[in-house]
Amino acid sequence: MTDYLKELQMPNRILLGPGPSNVSPRVLQAMMTPILGHLDPDFWHVLDEVREMLSLALGTSTECTLPLPATGTAGMESAFCNMVEPGDRVVIAVNGFFGARMAEIAARCGAEVHRIDVTWGKPVLPEMVEETLKNLGQVKAVGVVHAATSTGVLSPIKEIAEVVHKYDALIIADVVTSLGGLELHMDEWDLDVCYGASQKCLGAPPGLAPISFSSRALEAHKNRKTPVQSFYLDIATLENYWSETRQYHHTSPILSLYAFREALRMIMEEGIENRWQKHAHLAAGLRAGLEALELELFADPDYRLDPLTTIRVPEGIEAAQVIRQLYRDYNIEIGGGLGELASKIWRIGLMGESCKASNVLLVLSALETVLAKQGYAQYSGNSVAAAQQVLAAN
Amino acid sequence: MTDYLKELQMPNRILLGPGPSNVSPRVLQAMMTPILGHLDPDFWHVLDEVREMLSLALGTSTECTLPLPATGTAGMESAFCNMVEPGDRVVIAVNGFFGARMAEIAARCGAEVHRIDVTWGKPVLPEMVEETLKNLGQVKAVGVVHAATSTGVLSPIKEIAEVVHKYDALIIADVVTSLGGLELHMDEWDLDVCYGASQKCLGAPPGLAPISFSSRALEAHKNRKTPVQSFYLDIATLENYWSETRQYHHTSPILSLYAFREALRMIMEEGIENRWQKHAHLAAGLRAGLEALELELFADPDYRLDPLTTIRVPEGIEAAQVIRQLYRDYNIEIGGGLGELASKIWRIGLMGESCKASNVLLVLSALETVLAKQGYAQYSGNSVAAAQQVLAAN
Repeated sequence: MTDYLKELQMPNRILLGPGPSNVSPRVLQAMMTPILGHLDPDFWHVLDEVREMLSLALGTSTECTLPLPATGTAGMESAFCNMVEPGDRVVIAVNGFFGARMAEIAARCGAEVHRIDVTWGKPVLPEMVEETLKNLGQVKAVGVVHAATSTGVLSPIKEIAEVVHKYDALIIADVVTSLGGLELHMDEWDLDVCYGASQKCLGAPPGLAPISFSSRALEAHKNRKTPVQSFYLDIATLENYWSETRQYHHTSPILSLYAFREALRMIMEEGIENRWQKHAHLAAGLRAGLEALELELFADPDYRLDPLTTIRVPEGIEAAQVIRQLYRDYNIEIGGGLGELASKIWRIGLMGESCKASNVLLVLSALETVLAKQGYAQYSGNSVAAAQQVLAAN
Repeated sequence: MTDYLKELQMPNRILLGPGPSNVSPRVLQAMMTPILGHLDPDFWHVLDEVREMLSLALGTSTECTLPLPATGTAGMESAFCNMVEPGDRVVIAVNGFFGARMAEIAARCGAEVHRIDVTWGKPVLPEMVEETLKNLGQVKAVGVVHAATSTGVLSPIKEIAEVVHKYDALIIADVVTSLGGLELHMDEWDLDVCYGASQKCLGAPPGLAPISFSSRALEAHKNRKTPVQSFYLDIATLENYWSETRQYHHTSPILSLYAFREALRMIMEEGIENRWQKHAHLAAGLRAGLEALELELFADPDYRLDPLTTIRVPEGIEAAQVIRQLYRDYNIEIGGGLGELASKIWRIGLMGESCKASNVLLVLSALETVLAKQGYAQYSGNSVAAAQQVLAAN
């Protein structure tokens, strides 16, 4: 019997990597709601509710906010292909893997790309952006990753947006790792395009990419001289379906939208600010525990992310071996490094449904055990003790 | 309390439109399998199994076959943006809504598009393609919809492919409505790109777009002078993840892949030829019933689809009203017309899990009742009787 004729069996992982995070049973159960057609009037209120809740999570009241029927990278692609026309000058701040991806995607849209290269582990700062913008002619858009998933670094996007607007450009913000887990006010901070992903701090399964365009961004779209190169990701064609005309554009991934709605509903019940605070509090506990283990955190101390903590792999320890042992002995997933950080860092996520005090204690005690086996740490419980003190302070 | 704070409630529809079709409880249950990360080695065999089963369903052994992490329209876009470079000459046969969409998408890829316009309801024939190709210089690709979802018409794609190759062009086949429900042999028929969708005859939820590239197509991709305009849909970047290197490209929609694997597994158990036969047999029953109701079928009688049957709306009957009554009184979804066929036809799908004898009898008896109420038919049971006779012949 070939393997694919067997029933699917999977280990019950605790997902503490850079996403996907675990999915609440409530969200899973929502996917068992009877499937409807994408043009069934009974489905339409789901679209409206998703849009309304997503807008609250983003802190926006712009008219164009929706989850794209694809994953986060499609969100990035949609942001650039809607805003950029061939020949447009675009500035991309690259302080990690996804900034580099932004530059590649913008180039594939025909943009003239100017990179601001920042040491991985450091934030993008407003003065770096200003330095670049003042030496260039008219720039169409500036792309910045708010919370760098590959390095664990937060960049001050609000202050960057101020600089960008001073030079009359649009700011495109990657909020994949911040949306739902870190303070974010799209309108108040005057961000023009924000895109994210369903499977991180929002707590839904992977497969959808929330995106939102400011009125300034929509105006830029309206004034394009060339069509958006992607029909699938063109916000004008997508709006035909998401607006009240409900004109067919694509077959909506109905069950994913049910799940997404339920995940957003859980955020609304908890309150978005409370969720941000929970992520901050538990990340503080995790960091205290890691420091008690004498592990060095990778990200600039003044710009660390709460949803995702990055750790330098100590000398003499094989990064992949630790990841494998956490899988094997404890059913825990943590992430390795991407790109130039492969084998150099670990990434521990506490996002959405995975953001729980029990996971902080568990991942610290498991990591301490695995490192002790390799002669790095001792079986002391020190990391758990340090975390307990921080967590108890709440 | 605002609406989105309520638990989601949906009517239990029988989906007999142009897709999505119903999803088997087995497929739904597969989505409850514990979620893993997209780089977890325990997930990788799912990718391999999906690829192997999907290849069997398509009738191909090409090395590049995978479900795109997006819906069917992204499959169309991926086909064109991978094969076409700016300035390339492309021929699109337009005999329905999706042919027209192909032309739009090819144009957005920078192609010089030549349309072959065919009356909606009629097939694309090899001689039409030859007539066009012989009057043009070198053509890069010809796009044809195998089974036209908007009109219910099958085009002889094998014979068309022969003509296309005679003129040294690539054939791109939309198999969205045929894949899993109609005879299809990608390799034997020498098709270069085939793309489909998860939610029709394959019986999975919407959200994935299976796609496959022949070695000729991959060669054309390799010889491109310009990068594929989409990073997300570039088959080379996708292969980085789907091949043995397992290099990160996007966060795989894990739960959708679990469901897709289970839907494919059900096809393997049934046998793909048996599934084609079932679709043919039940469609014959449906057509007999509709004819007994003296309804006129829309598609050319020699080129009718089995998974989807199109019906002219009789004079004096309001199409949308019938659709609404089927929703309201029987929880049945059938489709209306798209584009120029809006209000002119109905579309009844018997696809995947929705392709059941019980659904044939139910939709006929419900439709007969609704039409009788409007004074068109009688309460005679004639349509059911006609279908019963055909179905009993098995």
